[in-house]
Amino acid sequence: MPTVMSKSCVLAPAGCQHAARVSSARSSLRGARLVSSRQAFRPAARGIIAIRAQAAPTATIEIAPPKAGEEEIFKAINTIRFLSIDGVNKANSGHPGLPMGCAPMSYLIWNEFMKYNPKDPMWPDRDRFVLSAGHGSMLQYSLMHLTGFESVQLDDLKQFRQWGSKTPGHPENFETKGIEVTTGPLGQGIANAVGLAAAEKHLAARFNKDDMKIVDHYTYVILGDGCNMEGISNEAASLAGHWELGKLIALYDDNKISIDGHTEISFTEDVNKRFEALGWHVQHVKDGNTDLSAMRNAIEAAKKDPRPSMIKVSTLIGYGSPNKADTHDVHGAPLGKDETAATRENLKWNYGEFEVPPEVYDLMGHAQKQGAEAEKKWDETWQQYKSKYPEEAGEYESIISGDLPSGWEDALPTFTPEDKGLATRLHSQTMLNALATAIPGFWGGSADLAPSNMTLMKQFGDFQKDTPQERNLRFGVREHGMGAIANGIALHSPGFIPYCATFFIFTDYMRASIRMAALSHAGTLFVMTHDSIGLGEDGPTHQPVEHLASFRAMPNILMLRPGDGNETAGAYQAAVLNAKGKNPDGVPRPSVMAFSRQGMPNQPGTSKEGVMKGLYTVHGGDGKPDVIFIASGSELCLAIDAAKEIESSGKKARVVSAVCWELFEDQDEAYKNSVLPPDVTARVSVEAGCTFGWERYVGSKGKSIGVDRFGASAPGPTLYKEFGITKEAAVAAAQSLM
Amino acid sequence: MPTVMSKSCVLAPAGCQHAARVSSARSSLRGARLVSSRQAFRPAARGIIAIRAQAAPTATIEIAPPKAGEEEIFKAINTIRFLSIDGVNKANSGHPGLPMGCAPMSYLIWNEFMKYNPKDPMWPDRDRFVLSAGHGSMLQYSLMHLTGFESVQLDDLKQFRQWGSKTPGHPENFETKGIEVTTGPLGQGIANAVGLAAAEKHLAARFNKDDMKIVDHYTYVILGDGCNMEGISNEAASLAGHWELGKLIALYDDNKISIDGHTEISFTEDVNKRFEALGWHVQHVKDGNTDLSAMRNAIEAAKKDPRPSMIKVSTLIGYGSPNKADTHDVHGAPLGKDETAATRENLKWNYGEFEVPPEVYDLMGHAQKQGAEAEKKWDETWQQYKSKYPEEAGEYESIISGDLPSGWEDALPTFTPEDKGLATRLHSQTMLNALATAIPGFWGGSADLAPSNMTLMKQFGDFQKDTPQERNLRFGVREHGMGAIANGIALHSPGFIPYCATFFIFTDYMRASIRMAALSHAGTLFVMTHDSIGLGEDGPTHQPVEHLASFRAMPNILMLRPGDGNETAGAYQAAVLNAKGKNPDGVPRPSVMAFSRQGMPNQPGTSKEGVMKGLYTVHGGDGKPDVIFIASGSELCLAIDAAKEIESSGKKARVVSAVCWELFEDQDEAYKNSVLPPDVTARVSVEAGCTFGWERYVGSKGKSIGVDRFGASAPGPTLYKEFGITKEAAVAAAQSLM
Repeated sequence: MPTVMSKSCVLAPAGCQHAARVSSARSSLRGARLVSSRQAFRPAARGIIAIRAQAAPTATIEIAPPKAGEEEIFKAINTIRFLSIDGVNKANSGHPGLPMGCAPMSYLIWNEFMKYNPKDPMWPDRDRFVLSAGHGSMLQYSLMHLTGFESVQLDDLKQFRQWGSKTPGHPENFETKGIEVTTGPLGQGIANAVGLAAAEKHLAARFNKDDMKIVDHYTYVILGDGCNMEGISNEAASLAGHWELGKLIALYDDNKISIDGHTEISFTEDVNKRFEALGWHVQHVKDGNTDLSAMRNAIEAAKKDPRPSMIKVSTLIGYGSPNKADTHDVHGAPLGKDETAATRENLKWNYGEFEVPPEVYDLMGHAQKQGAEAEKKWDETWQQYKSKYPEEAGEYESIISGDLPSGWEDALPTFTPEDKGLATRLHSQTMLNALATAIPGFWGGSADLAPSNMTLMKQFGDFQKDTPQERNLRFGVREHGMGAIANGIALHSPGFIPYCATFFIFTDYMRASIRMAALSHAGTLFVMTHDSIGLGEDGPTHQPVEHLASFRAMPNILMLRPGDGNETAGAYQAAVLNAKGKNPDGVPRPSVMAFSRQGMPNQPGTSKEGVMKGLYTVHGGDGKPDVIFIASGSELCLAIDAAKEIESSGKKARVVSAVCWELFEDQDEAYKNSVLPPDVTARVSVEAGCTFGWERYVGSKGKSIGVDRFGASAPGPTLYKEFGITKEAAVAAAQSLM
Repeated sequence: MPTVMSKSCVLAPAGCQHAARVSSARSSLRGARLVSSRQAFRPAARGIIAIRAQAAPTATIEIAPPKAGEEEIFKAINTIRFLSIDGVNKANSGHPGLPMGCAPMSYLIWNEFMKYNPKDPMWPDRDRFVLSAGHGSMLQYSLMHLTGFESVQLDDLKQFRQWGSKTPGHPENFETKGIEVTTGPLGQGIANAVGLAAAEKHLAARFNKDDMKIVDHYTYVILGDGCNMEGISNEAASLAGHWELGKLIALYDDNKISIDGHTEISFTEDVNKRFEALGWHVQHVKDGNTDLSAMRNAIEAAKKDPRPSMIKVSTLIGYGSPNKADTHDVHGAPLGKDETAATRENLKWNYGEFEVPPEVYDLMGHAQKQGAEAEKKWDETWQQYKSKYPEEAGEYESIISGDLPSGWEDALPTFTPEDKGLATRLHSQTMLNALATAIPGFWGGSADLAPSNMTLMKQFGDFQKDTPQERNLRFGVREHGMGAIANGIALHSPGFIPYCATFFIFTDYMRASIRMAALSHAGTLFVMTHDSIGLGEDGPTHQPVEHLASFRAMPNILMLRPGDGNETAGAYQAAVLNAKGKNPDGVPRPSVMAFSRQGMPNQPGTSKEGVMKGLYTVHGGDGKPDVIFIASGSELCLAIDAAKEIESSGKKARVVSAVCWELFEDQDEAYKNSVLPPDVTARVSVEAGCTFGWERYVGSKGKSIGVDRFGASAPGPTLYKEFGITKEAAVAAAQSLM
């Protein structure tokens, strides 16, 4: 069931700055090399014979290598090596070993295979590159500099790992234009890459036409032993095989050295056989140091195979260093003056520190020429596509521009107290379904808990290998991989808003991916149900306690816990706006949303507008209260009941709903003081989670009712009673303070 | 280099209650079935022919099945099924599908293969059983009841998932005697089992003699599709293959159903081929519902193979239910009255709810008789071992009793300001090495960061497949698996204190394992170095910010951040004591210890005794201060410098070292008020982490200096300056409050 959008909603994105920029950048391009889509299925001729282009909009854009002999190529490869060595030496910090070993394979990817335009790093149909072994960042910076990315000048290489530089210790997409995703924590990159490749497969199936292909690009990854040891990479790779992501090509830098020494001490599995079991096409290049033909052939074969490809490339870490190659010493420390000199002599490198032979700039500048031509050709196709398929073009434009369709918020319903009270996970499903219709780039799924998380979009089918145009993702029980895949999707196109779901407790399984979303400005929505002891019988292994606090402590992420239908709508509105960077910092901010298993009534005082301010008054807003209850989620109604009981004794009670601390902190002091008047120190927080951190709002004289222990297995209402999360306890706490 | 302990340290455990209890429990046992260790290598005869025992202490204890025909056995199997059905129905909550499908294989494990004594569940040489698919807990409770565990009476089965019961929603070792580890979060159990099997291999190599075998047991696991999808299981399985844990036998309940429906929608990899690639022996039993012989033969073959074994057992989830078997409906919801009746009819089950045919008690009581005999035989060997090998017996006794050798604390050194200032990760190495010598059960390792975490025990070699008696574990880059393996080791024997290490930031990769340690009373030491922005150039992907807060929020775990040598010694002392349950709650409490990359001076006011109280005064303890600085770790010296500057202007400043909030919360109010006098509201916290939560100690009028953003890539000192973590900022904050 492919989605059909109403014109009014999709074709008029509100403020289309990015799309405008992209178009203008493209208008200056000339020439192209193409083969017809029929030709694209034949083995492409390689080496010094360039493929003649046929200027048909139906074509697949094919990349051909520059004319160059082996000597010229190895000069470029050694330039990559020495820039990396010099950068690490100058910083006196970093990892020279991987760049020295991976320079040959990366040269081939970047100068003979990859389709990209260094002068327009955000061209939507570029091939993606992910250095999953992110510690080798100087490799990528060297490649970016030599191929002509404006973000990495020679001076930037000299500022490696320094304050304010564009060349931080690990590749950071938010610092350096042209970096696709942030890597360093091992395994995240390959899992992001699965997301990038899934996004491509989805867009290609959804938007390409028999006569026009506007989405057609590969995702290349370099990963190391460390990535392959991490569980997250196995999770993501299993899905890549399952989804048959044929345009994902991973090169495994098999250098046999990790920080503890030789991989023999902890890593003796048969990696390629494992990937075969996961449904991948696998190959082994035995000499990744000098055998360019073998690497070329392997990449060619990988492109042809319909499965994702793993190419194990055996290399020597620190290749060229006479005394440190093939040892752990060259992994994570500068070569140093003497060994650098010895390496220069060994590789017969007669150039100075940070010196680039002009002919290497020429050779690697090929990427610019070819990329510009390819982008121009693509742009011609895109212009024709817009004329011929305006409706699809509107959706696609929304996805590549990142602009939300005007009026998207109107899809979010409002509720009155007369509406049936429901669990917020059910409200969440309503919102997900509404947004999926309103926003073309909205898609996602659950880690095998769809019927519990209530995350299926009913209007769509499943994204599967044969139905990739669909939008329900089935991640299986793979939370960590799910998060990183969703982040890859978010960073593939600015208009994607991926969501991913599991029980709130299992954020513990994917915390690194959630943090990476926050750090790298991936506006992923983390939909977390079963948010407290209220889930009941599954017991303490499944009951989150400290999780709200743990995300409130994390930078650049919203932790939202709505208390009824209106607040769930508001939570989604805030999450989508923040995913798009609509916040004081102006950068995408992901959200963790905690939803209940159990039902709760709709309250008269709740509103989307209130949620936007994080904390707001839902009851007793007039005049100075004698006591303030602050509550979130399923405890909101309990607090309101407590307030009413206080009021029945003639006192004045206010209830503040604390849906999101981060949004409240964004407000000005006047607003904050209007909600929590400083002179009212009788304050009681009520939340079925740990009380850690609540001192911020209840102050030194307030009290917090919460769960400062692990949960237990019993029906939810029993647990609330046994743990003292009750109206009576709230009333008693309030009375003790007045 | 096997360890040699001094007699005084090991042979006189301080207070040997557990050992005493174990011995007395064993003294009443009679009879045994044994084969000589030579015979143990031959295929054991099975079926109704019992092996004749030879009563030699050199022997391997062999278990033989009871005499029973298929009809009797299937009656027992159906009893397991119906107890599970009835328990879930009565609770109106739970998972009947797995118990119904896994009843045959589990019957065989529990009544024909496993060596255990239901009347002494803690017998050290018992075989271990782990239900990694923990949602099927009623399976295990049914087995435990039928085989005679005192912890699970018939009434307990009727209290499934109720408040205070011994039969919680998922198996919990801390609630139900006889449960080895807590499972439910998928993949944790199989990873724990790798730890259990590693522990056995280690102990066997370390303590068995050619003429006496006192450690010789298997670890059986039942895991499901969900466990196999999780990355943690791949990490742990890769290590199991690498370590060649031949006595680990995993049965994979291949029922093809997960919560989202058929596994076809997300899980199509070749699991057995993957395990082959990981170095496992793999088999497939195609009919796990009725083919007992095939299952028996597979387990026999698994026992013989020197590799860890994976037996894929294809089953029907909800076997016996005519309308719900093989569907998701039977996975996680009660069968209900009608379908239960239909299932009774279908399986010709003429017994009532919770009714156990007496002959089934008889048949499954076999485990008690055989277990008692086996334990008695073992005890005879153990008594002889103690006479013949007193030194090794002392070490082993310490490990099986859990009593710390007297005087172990004396191994921890003290420091004066004249001692060279060092990074606390270096002090940590000193402590690890000292404790490893003092405590026979102390061992562990790092996730491929040993040279950075400084976690090698220099007196020992590496635990490897051919040197399992050694104590340095090499986990590779597998944090999540590492944590769960360490937890398995901790729960294998009460005297084990395992440690595991990585960068503090990568607690995000293993948070679920750390939480499971806290929940399940596994006294694991989580050694976390590179604890702040102070690590510098690696940048924000590697710099923890919110992590101290996130663990302070977690129940039953210590978050320790020491500020010099004495405090590092104190941190280890507290961590070891708490690992053994020496705290107000009397239960083992694991520790997360955060150590610096960068150096810091030894302070005059620090002490181990102070650390034991969590927060304590290290400077300016006399009289009422004008301002209090509260700092931890690398910021302690900064706070002391700030205090001295305040004092130079004639004011009185106190510095409180906040090594561990949890230990401080354990203290009485008088102590707390002596450290933080309530009438001193001018308080400034200084910590290179997020300020979230610090309101607890600085109060509404105090100020917190911290890092409420992600870090950056630059030299550490630059980051401190740019982020305002400076003496000047601390002084200014103090002055603004006085």
